[in-house]
Amino acid sequence: MALPQEFLDTRNKVRNWGRWGDDDVLGTLNLLTDEAVAAAAAEIQTGRRFSLALDLKLDGVQLGAVPGRVNPLRTMVAINSGMSPDADSFKTSDDVVFMGLQAATHWDGLGHVSYSDTLYNGIPAHTITEWGATRVGIENVKTLTGRGVLLDVAKQHGVDTLPLDHVITAEDLDAAAAMGNIEMRSGDIALLRTGLMAQYHAGQKEVYNGWTGSPGPGLSAVEWFHENNIAAAATDTFIFEIFPSELDDAMLAVHMLDVVDMGLTQGQNWDMEALSADCAADGRYSFFLEASPQPFVGGCGSPVNPVAIK
Amino acid sequence: MALPQEFLDTRNKVRNWGRWGDDDVLGTLNLLTDEAVAAAAAEIQTGRRFSLALDLKLDGVQLGAVPGRVNPLRTMVAINSGMSPDADSFKTSDDVVFMGLQAATHWDGLGHVSYSDTLYNGIPAHTITEWGATRVGIENVKTLTGRGVLLDVAKQHGVDTLPLDHVITAEDLDAAAAMGNIEMRSGDIALLRTGLMAQYHAGQKEVYNGWTGSPGPGLSAVEWFHENNIAAAATDTFIFEIFPSELDDAMLAVHMLDVVDMGLTQGQNWDMEALSADCAADGRYSFFLEASPQPFVGGCGSPVNPVAIK
Amino acid sequence: MALPQEFLDTRNKVRNWGRWGDDDVLGTLNLLTDEAVAAAAAEIQTGRRFSLALDLKLDGVQLGAVPGRVNPLRTMVAINSGMSPDADSFKTSDDVVFMGLQAATHWDGLGHVSYSDTLYNGIPAHTITEWGATRVGIENVKTLTGRGVLLDVAKQHGVDTLPLDHVITAEDLDAAAAMGNIEMRSGDIALLRTGLMAQYHAGQKEVYNGWTGSPGPGLSAVEWFHENNIAAAATDTFIFEIFPSELDDAMLAVHMLDVVDMGLTQGQNWDMEALSADCAADGRYSFFLEASPQPFVGGCGSPVNPVAIK
Amino acid sequence: MALPQEFLDTRNKVRNWGRWGDDDVLGTLNLLTDEAVAAAAAEIQTGRRFSLALDLKLDGVQLGAVPGRVNPLRTMVAINSGMSPDADSFKTSDDVVFMGLQAATHWDGLGHVSYSDTLYNGIPAHTITEWGATRVGIENVKTLTGRGVLLDVAKQHGVDTLPLDHVITAEDLDAAAAMGNIEMRSGDIALLRTGLMAQYHAGQKEVYNGWTGSPGPGLSAVEWFHENNIAAAATDTFIFEIFPSELDDAMLAVHMLDVVDMGLTQGQNWDMEALSADCAADGRYSFFLEASPQPFVGGCGSPVNPVAIK
Repeated sequence: MALPQEFLDTRNKVRNWGRWGDDDVLGTLNLLTDEAVAAAAAEIQTGRRFSLALDLKLDGVQLGAVPGRVNPLRTMVAINSGMSPDADSFKTSDDVVFMGLQAATHWDGLGHVSYSDTLYNGIPAHTITEWGATRVGIENVKTLTGRGVLLDVAKQHGVDTLPLDHVITAEDLDAAAAMGNIEMRSGDIALLRTGLMAQYHAGQKEVYNGWTGSPGPGLSAVEWFHENNIAAAATDTFIFEIFPSELDDAMLAVHMLDVVDMGLTQGQNWDMEALSADCAADGRYSFFLEASPQPFVGGCGSPVNPVAIK
Repeated sequence: MALPQEFLDTRNKVRNWGRWGDDDVLGTLNLLTDEAVAAAAAEIQTGRRFSLALDLKLDGVQLGAVPGRVNPLRTMVAINSGMSPDADSFKTSDDVVFMGLQAATHWDGLGHVSYSDTLYNGIPAHTITEWGATRVGIENVKTLTGRGVLLDVAKQHGVDTLPLDHVITAEDLDAAAAMGNIEMRSGDIALLRTGLMAQYHAGQKEVYNGWTGSPGPGLSAVEWFHENNIAAAATDTFIFEIFPSELDDAMLAVHMLDVVDMGLTQGQNWDMEALSADCAADGRYSFFLEASPQPFVGGCGSPVNPVAIK
Repeated sequence: MALPQEFLDTRNKVRNWGRWGDDDVLGTLNLLTDEAVAAAAAEIQTGRRFSLALDLKLDGVQLGAVPGRVNPLRTMVAINSGMSPDADSFKTSDDVVFMGLQAATHWDGLGHVSYSDTLYNGIPAHTITEWGATRVGIENVKTLTGRGVLLDVAKQHGVDTLPLDHVITAEDLDAAAAMGNIEMRSGDIALLRTGLMAQYHAGQKEVYNGWTGSPGPGLSAVEWFHENNIAAAATDTFIFEIFPSELDDAMLAVHMLDVVDMGLTQGQNWDMEALSADCAADGRYSFFLEASPQPFVGGCGSPVNPVAIK
Repeated sequence: MALPQEFLDTRNKVRNWGRWGDDDVLGTLNLLTDEAVAAAAAEIQTGRRFSLALDLKLDGVQLGAVPGRVNPLRTMVAINSGMSPDADSFKTSDDVVFMGLQAATHWDGLGHVSYSDTLYNGIPAHTITEWGATRVGIENVKTLTGRGVLLDVAKQHGVDTLPLDHVITAEDLDAAAAMGNIEMRSGDIALLRTGLMAQYHAGQKEVYNGWTGSPGPGLSAVEWFHENNIAAAATDTFIFEIFPSELDDAMLAVHMLDVVDMGLTQGQNWDMEALSADCAADGRYSFFLEASPQPFVGGCGSPVNPVAIK
């Protein structure tokens, strides 16, 4: 079954293979230059900080749709345990966790998606082995920090939550940027808000998981990411992209174009609710963002605690 | 067995119980105010970034000394797996991990240490249960960011690595700050470098683990942390503090005073080697530091990827 | 709060401390003598075999009521993976599992229950540490095999499932043995059938878990176990015993008396449905039973695949 | 690279595809008929029992050679934990484990090996997915019990341990059976003893793991298994078969022929030391064997506690 022509047309516009060298494994994160980071420091003005991470807990986001991607199960291995029975001596408590690397607020690494037997930059898909992503493991991303911009599409549309079938388009993103008074810069990290996270907080996990459809970026948004030289993009949804896809014959087309063709690191399950309220209050939709992944060798993704600082 | 008088004398000086209210569960992290963070932004000048995290891998730091605290075992649960057999369709790879929360570069949360049946702020030790730290879980620390200062004690002593029995004293810390031309501020995050990490990189894991002794801060350093209103402190060692302890009858005395009495969040296994070289090169030993933990509900610690930005 | 008099009366009758020596860690499993096993061989007549284990899977028995006791999560670590890319060469698939030792069909080891700071045989409860059951670990039970008898209380009462508040009494057990034409012998392994397992198979997991009450043995059944020199006992329920307990002030009284006082190894979640049908068909309610636990060092329980052979 | 002619010749003799129907997923375990099991009961004479399982512990057999196949890490999730703080009330201890299904004493299921894109009975190798062995999962083996025979090749050769390069041949197996006065029967479960397990007990784990070579069955032994209608076979080694292989161009040839062509369930790391001494003492080398796997749905293997009863 051939890929649809509309998919191929978009791909021709956004593919970044070779752009940062044949050996590149970072993709658009190359846009996070020293200069971009230094300029982003000016966003820190009041020192207010916002964690965009969901709590890591067993009763978390995952409902079982992705086999093996389990919510964090943290268990104790020591509870006030001492080398001496003397009550006044040192006692320690320690814990371990079992979790999917993409269980909660996370980044999709470039090893997470392949198609036509190929990863980003033409790297063969078979380099993903039982050892993990042997070429494009997330440990290659040492740091991920720069200017973040909140593209509050829900607010721009005047709704709490976008309809479940709302395709976020390039026009939506331009309008959200305009509402936020943002001039996009190369290396910006784009945070797209649909408002769907409120469903999760309300206990509507099936809705949040997208079982009845999920709003998210469509094909024109992919082109917009490329034209605006976005370094990374995140949403406040489980699936990231519009679901079902715009194209019948290319399920998860945005994942394919973003990760494989553009080399874009994608974030999911980012909680932008408090940040959205703050941006609405002070009218500033840009901020310093620190969202470095954990350096799992061979990892196809990583949990992240993204921190926005204004 | 009574606690030694010298321990009690130090405790009287550094105990912060009640300082931020009877219900406080953050301790010295309260010093990371909006103002401190806003001021720290001035440290970002060139945009150079340094990850201080060790790679997360099975062949990591842990050698088995702490029961259950296992190195990260990451395993694949999907390898280029698709919902359709069509080669041109979306394929995904996913992974899970089992690891000690304190296995590699990490923070000790305030639930990690107790003595005399008590945690920080007088909270009963029995609030650590099979559910974890029910009162002082690390999820309470939403963000951990501010000004970092490298106190390069090894360099100040003119050695690559401090001797294994070197007690880092208040005088050492003053001298290292002076060498770095640093005026300490309330809310600074102190990074103490012994140089021991080079042993880990050289494959000398037993030495690095401190089986033959480990350099680290002693009792006078604890007082120094308190007098200088340090928000958090980290070392480039496995044990954190001088080992064996200065006091025969109070093993891991610094842990007890830091975590239980002062409410200090402690970092271990931080790799400061590249940062040290850079600070020596440009003469700047202060920087913006982002080191927020992962929000494990009830967690007694958390892996962290600390990022220094200059 | 003192233990109720009725509890203490039963305890006086059934406590086996010292019966097999002060150092004993096996309890009633001592009744599985060579002679008892040799005699049990006569039960094998046709060679028909019945596995009494539930499938081990993520969608299993556990619903989260017991913190940390997770259903088995099995994940692949190699899928048709080879050392050579040659298609004709050896390829291997391998898997790992994370699971509660008591997640599915299992034995409660003697480390599983304590009260009044004490385990079976007066062993201090503090010998259960972060290392596990350091004295009474389930690895001490090398083998667990002998004559099994099905005490089909549901069938004897003429019902598919006992009412949720049905207390299995000594009289019930005598009647069930009589129905099965069984003369009880020292060292018999008693399988008590309530029929509740049918609820699990029907997808009624909350009912099966006993959230609305669970039938099971009460205090007089404990005495019956003792008088009949039962080596081990198992039920087809999640909780094992009648729930809520007969005594208001001694929740899980049967667990306490069985495991701590009598030293009885208890089985839960045993699927006796097919075996029950077969026993009804041929009128033989006794069989050879092999149900050795896995030798987890320090384990407080173990999964088991009990096999009845007729 | 073509498979060697000698490999193909053996394959022609031993392949069982279609022998038990096109849908069969049990292979030679079909030979464990009711009749075979009933006859095996006569082996139980004294009631003496031998567990052939190694202790399950972190300091176990695995040294890291097989990625992801980790030794059992058992951790506590509750330690004398109660719903009430009353000391006299019910307290419970519970544990979880993370382990490779083939970490210690185990069975290789029919999903464990493929070659030429094919599993046993011509089932496509791609039926092994991230969900596990979707066609030949080890849960299909409900029970595994019958007559066991100890083929004590080491003792027959008059040595404690066979030389590391000793290929166990058909002649060796005939000689060991003759020494044990055994007439082989269809459905026998063959236990091949090399004596290598003594190296493991002596702490020589690298030797035991076969890093310097391992004795084990070669090609003629595979034919012997087939001719004698063996139901399953196990060794007291890590690798199972002679290593390096007899054929330069077919590494692990015995695995390929046994599992893929013959449909033989293979056991590894079986501890036969005490059983060997007992058989030598009483001259009886046959016994009742119960060695049912745990029913992991989709499992490619399973831990097992094999119990020999004489």
